[in-house]
Amino acid sequence: MYAQRLERARARMEQLGVDALLCSVGPDLPYLTGYEATPLERLTMLVMRREGAAVLVVPRLEAPRVEARADIFTVEPWDETDDPIVRVAAHVRGARSVAIGDHTWARFVLALQDALPDARFCAASTVTGPLRVVKDAAEIEALRVAARLVDEIAVTMRERPFAGRSERDVHRELVERMLDCGHERANFAIVASGPNAASPHHEPTDRIIAPGEVVLCDFGGTRHGYCSDITRMFHVGEPSAQVRDAYDALVAAQEAGVVAATAGTPCEVVDAAARRVLADAGFGDAFVHRTGHGIGMDAHEDPYVVAGNTTPLVAGHAFSIEPGVYFPDRFGLRLEDIVVARDDGPDRLNHAPRDLAVVD
Amino acid sequence: MYAQRLERARARMEQLGVDALLCSVGPDLPYLTGYEATPLERLTMLVMRREGAAVLVVPRLEAPRVEARADIFTVEPWDETDDPIVRVAAHVRGARSVAIGDHTWARFVLALQDALPDARFCAASTVTGPLRVVKDAAEIEALRVAARLVDEIAVTMRERPFAGRSERDVHRELVERMLDCGHERANFAIVASGPNAASPHHEPTDRIIAPGEVVLCDFGGTRHGYCSDITRMFHVGEPSAQVRDAYDALVAAQEAGVVAATAGTPCEVVDAAARRVLADAGFGDAFVHRTGHGIGMDAHEDPYVVAGNTTPLVAGHAFSIEPGVYFPDRFGLRLEDIVVARDDGPDRLNHAPRDLAVVD
Repeated sequence: MYAQRLERARARMEQLGVDALLCSVGPDLPYLTGYEATPLERLTMLVMRREGAAVLVVPRLEAPRVEARADIFTVEPWDETDDPIVRVAAHVRGARSVAIGDHTWARFVLALQDALPDARFCAASTVTGPLRVVKDAAEIEALRVAARLVDEIAVTMRERPFAGRSERDVHRELVERMLDCGHERANFAIVASGPNAASPHHEPTDRIIAPGEVVLCDFGGTRHGYCSDITRMFHVGEPSAQVRDAYDALVAAQEAGVVAATAGTPCEVVDAAARRVLADAGFGDAFVHRTGHGIGMDAHEDPYVVAGNTTPLVAGHAFSIEPGVYFPDRFGLRLEDIVVARDDGPDRLNHAPRDLAVVD
Repeated sequence: MYAQRLERARARMEQLGVDALLCSVGPDLPYLTGYEATPLERLTMLVMRREGAAVLVVPRLEAPRVEARADIFTVEPWDETDDPIVRVAAHVRGARSVAIGDHTWARFVLALQDALPDARFCAASTVTGPLRVVKDAAEIEALRVAARLVDEIAVTMRERPFAGRSERDVHRELVERMLDCGHERANFAIVASGPNAASPHHEPTDRIIAPGEVVLCDFGGTRHGYCSDITRMFHVGEPSAQVRDAYDALVAAQEAGVVAATAGTPCEVVDAAARRVLADAGFGDAFVHRTGHGIGMDAHEDPYVVAGNTTPLVAGHAFSIEPGVYFPDRFGLRLEDIVVARDDGPDRLNHAPRDLAVVD
């Protein structure tokens, strides 16, 4: 599988005239080789020339972690007193066009640019993006299992108490449940109660959840390399008519977004489908963000479901549909599922109930 | 405090001829402003000109998270269909020398270079490094409290069973204990048993810990923005003479490193002090990494205690002293404390017992 992916990356380099591909932290490296770089100051970098073998330049003390894969790359450990930039540059010498991993640290980018003054650098996603964006059957299955696992957590949370607990406490429970059910990593768990839910990327605080409040839970992790991401809404006791009305519009908007997400439909059309429902219900100004983001080995990746993105969905694109409405100082609501585009329509991966869960 | 730090950063920019400082993900931004950027594809960036007010360019949906600090920066939210690169570039226009945060993603570095073709880019650490490397009294106190918290975990683990548990299970316990005792984040928890301990940066696996094995536990988190980091060694049942001998040499080496860590001593001399003890005991080849790394808001930062680093320690430098010995396919050992250099000698922040803990 990795050999095949490297082959496809090389074909794309050929097409773009890219001479060398440099992958460090971020999902390109595990996508291409199965190995994930440690995000620390000791540089790990795969150097792949358009022709010739790939080399993984890796800190000596991390070399024992690398599974030998002689068919796809050789391993070149560097010692504490070596300069890994010199090592990488030696392998890239003569390259005119270099693609470097999108998440690579600036300090390494700048050092490599200094070491390779004749090379023009571009983002590695120009090479790897078109490969990674279309998921194969095994990748979709991995996303489906991850989605099912967080679905089960969302269902469990409907029976859990919320009032009297801090946001941080619920956050902690979500993180532990993600780890318990087989995620190797909990990437985030937004728990936003009452007025805090009006902040879409709220960080959990010590605020105590009170009766009569909404609680927005948006959580996801990584399982076998692929990400989960779900948002469900809870309400302590019966919601007011105001909350109920906004939530009804949100459910309709989310449904409209999902239904629109068929292969061939431009991303911005999917965004508009969800947005129109909220605008028609009078909540247009409250929906302050895009409708969704791609998902795969990265929690957020192409394709982005946003106005201005005219790219048509392709079968195998995986992305979130997550409209939200936010009322500063009052409350906020969001509803999110992961969806895979198919030629015959959207394949929704999350199935936890989408109603506003009334909790204690 | 933040206003003072920004003032010092500006003075340093003046000194270096840097026209603009750009801070995104990583510790520079919270160090200078108290705000931490979300490490996602929506760019957050503080733009600080040498003269004039600083501006925080932030995604609209994250703007509610930013605490207003009109005295140190203005907030400029960007909408989903805006290009944040254009926003940032507009504030930097005319700058010849631009310092950009070391951890900034490559895709943003490259996009900003394209948008500002006349600017020369350097790493922000040239500006912020000398500020951050010397910790003030409050920062040392924050490191001391974080160290005490992981000390308590290390002590607790001496009474816990290890045999029959997986590395992953012990890893999970360490993570939970760090969160329980007040770390907002568990950064890592290496649990390496038996032969796995020969891999210095081992990732925890499902391997079951057996009687007669060493277990290396190296863990740390972030509490109130400052990092903890400790390594202690456990042995299931009585260790062999071989393990005991290597461990005795390691304890002596670590002690020699700590004792050498006085203000005025070059980093490489501290490294050599620890290294010499192991070499004299016949374990020189088994010590495959540097003696230590600086620590603060970042888990690894300047100063690095490594051969070739001739920088003398300064009072207020904080760093790890963590020699290790690794015997492939057999076992490995490491011992680590955080130390602050002072004019009158080393101030060791970790105090958990350093003997090889015999556990069940």
